[in-house]
Amino acid sequence: MDINKLVKPNIRSLRAYQAEEVPCKVKLDANESPYGTTVLKSIETNKYPDPEAKALRKLFARDCKVKAENVLHGNGSDELISCLITTFGGPVLYPVPTFSMYGIIAQAQGEKKIEVPLDKHFDIDLGKMLPLIKSRNPKLIFLSSPNNPTGNCYSSDRIIKIIKQSKGLVIVDEAYQAFSGKNEFLPLLKKYRNLVVLRTLSKVGMAALRTGFMIAGKEVVDEVNKVRLPFNVNSLSQKVAVDTLQKKAQLRSGIRSIISERKKTMKEMIKMDRVGPYPSDANFIFFKVDGAGSIFKKLLSKGVLVRNMTGAVENCLRVTIGTPKENAFFLKSLKQVL
Amino acid sequence: MDINKLVKPNIRSLRAYQAEEVPCKVKLDANESPYGTTVLKSIETNKYPDPEAKALRKLFARDCKVKAENVLHGNGSDELISCLITTFGGPVLYPVPTFSMYGIIAQAQGEKKIEVPLDKHFDIDLGKMLPLIKSRNPKLIFLSSPNNPTGNCYSSDRIIKIIKQSKGLVIVDEAYQAFSGKNEFLPLLKKYRNLVVLRTLSKVGMAALRTGFMIAGKEVVDEVNKVRLPFNVNSLSQKVAVDTLQKKAQLRSGIRSIISERKKTMKEMIKMDRVGPYPSDANFIFFKVDGAGSIFKKLLSKGVLVRNMTGAVENCLRVTIGTPKENAFFLKSLKQVL
Repeated sequence: MDINKLVKPNIRSLRAYQAEEVPCKVKLDANESPYGTTVLKSIETNKYPDPEAKALRKLFARDCKVKAENVLHGNGSDELISCLITTFGGPVLYPVPTFSMYGIIAQAQGEKKIEVPLDKHFDIDLGKMLPLIKSRNPKLIFLSSPNNPTGNCYSSDRIIKIIKQSKGLVIVDEAYQAFSGKNEFLPLLKKYRNLVVLRTLSKVGMAALRTGFMIAGKEVVDEVNKVRLPFNVNSLSQKVAVDTLQKKAQLRSGIRSIISERKKTMKEMIKMDRVGPYPSDANFIFFKVDGAGSIFKKLLSKGVLVRNMTGAVENCLRVTIGTPKENAFFLKSLKQVL
Repeated sequence: MDINKLVKPNIRSLRAYQAEEVPCKVKLDANESPYGTTVLKSIETNKYPDPEAKALRKLFARDCKVKAENVLHGNGSDELISCLITTFGGPVLYPVPTFSMYGIIAQAQGEKKIEVPLDKHFDIDLGKMLPLIKSRNPKLIFLSSPNNPTGNCYSSDRIIKIIKQSKGLVIVDEAYQAFSGKNEFLPLLKKYRNLVVLRTLSKVGMAALRTGFMIAGKEVVDEVNKVRLPFNVNSLSQKVAVDTLQKKAQLRSGIRSIISERKKTMKEMIKMDRVGPYPSDANFIFFKVDGAGSIFKKLLSKGVLVRNMTGAVENCLRVTIGTPKENAFFLKSLKQVL
């Protein structure tokens, strides 16, 4: 796999923005203001963020058991998806239903999209997918696993078959990985040079920060880094993300509680006659319910906002796992409106 | 000027990401975690930012005397430049030397760049520019005014001639406007539908936040908004930016001090034999000095970091205006190394 041949020609001759740190007493090179704000005491608001987010990447890389050179930071995973498409171009292939931004960003950038329906268990349909990979030769394949909105992980062996047969990059988007307990793809990065993993802090309590990560071979990271805007993750997010990653116990306890609440909520939903929840490896439950559109509205009238997914799968809704109190309120309300 | 005809075909059929706010008691629609971090007390870190940055845009629009619908928020102006190029495509035309990101982003997106040298006063060279606008019909023209790195504002009448003759958009990038005291282009937005103004908080003390703004006609804002990633400015930046804009006195006092220090520093530099500073409307001074490369290194060995611009203009350096103490240290060091 020659990554350099895979990138778009306009990217090949591009160099990454140089914003190196030069030790000095008086820094008068960057047109920053000498006057910040007093709103935040521990952050120099007048100075540009560390463009390379060194402290954050180092910490995150250690957690992933990779080197910092294998990690790229994004203003949320969205931005990394966008940078990947800018760097490699299309066609962009992904199973559906899935996270909507793959298609939206591909269209925004004028790249071809190839959408392949999942099978009836919401798993990858190799019979459909492999021939399309052969005939259309997609530059990028996005696999959201656990998949949003369906909640399941795809079969690992199917993902690996796709990685093996694809001449382009295969991006396993593990935004919800914390709730699946599975960590199968990071260890495969060294084996498969066209494998890319996406992770994020958004689902584990840091959605406000917009901090996503791409983990990949150094040659992929270096190419994508060329199109990353220099100061894409701001100082405040870098600082809070570092502080958060250092408080592992707090993070883990939140994740444990969500997994345990998911099990409880699932159990209750299975008992309900007209409700069909699908197995979930994520922090939400995807479920079928007769008259989903009307149920959605009735839930909202009780003050419960879930996601109406009837556009993607007929009669399906998606509910995020909240606090025990929120989940109890959801279950009570659902029973009432059925 | 039909903005819809100007946008790239793939953008025309794209809809902006819908992330509307629905009033509810229990919000279980967005796969957020119910557990945030205790690092910041006033911000719910587990919830996604307001995708439309309503409070921030409203406040900024009021300051600019435009409507909120005329303002789009970016993760720094960089991101807005990127979104403009994604929306309208190329060719992208700009005078040189200027802010490097116009060219870098155009190349990253595979669009043609047209670079036109400034005249010997670093003003727009209409004799070169107008024929190129006619023959090449650029979709986007970027005019950084005050210009980085030269520090001067371009002549307003020349900018207006370009706006009038261009069939594409003309973006007046006013990143350094606060230090020029001039506000000529916002009032012209209603007259010229192809005029776009960029502003930022980065130079007035908020570089850490990455908050930029595009001010333009509603039809331009609506098209560019389609390619903006939904949660591009995070909650922390939104909050601190709002707090900052509400503390006008603090902002103004910083700006006044920088302008007064610029005058003092300029006066001292004019007195130096081998140093030729150019007039500045910005928070930095661009200056010629014999052996600039060597002077740059000698300044650094004294602990003063300026920007070496010899790649853009022979024997030129750029120094940012710092605190009175920093400026005095720079002047003293410069005298010593001349």
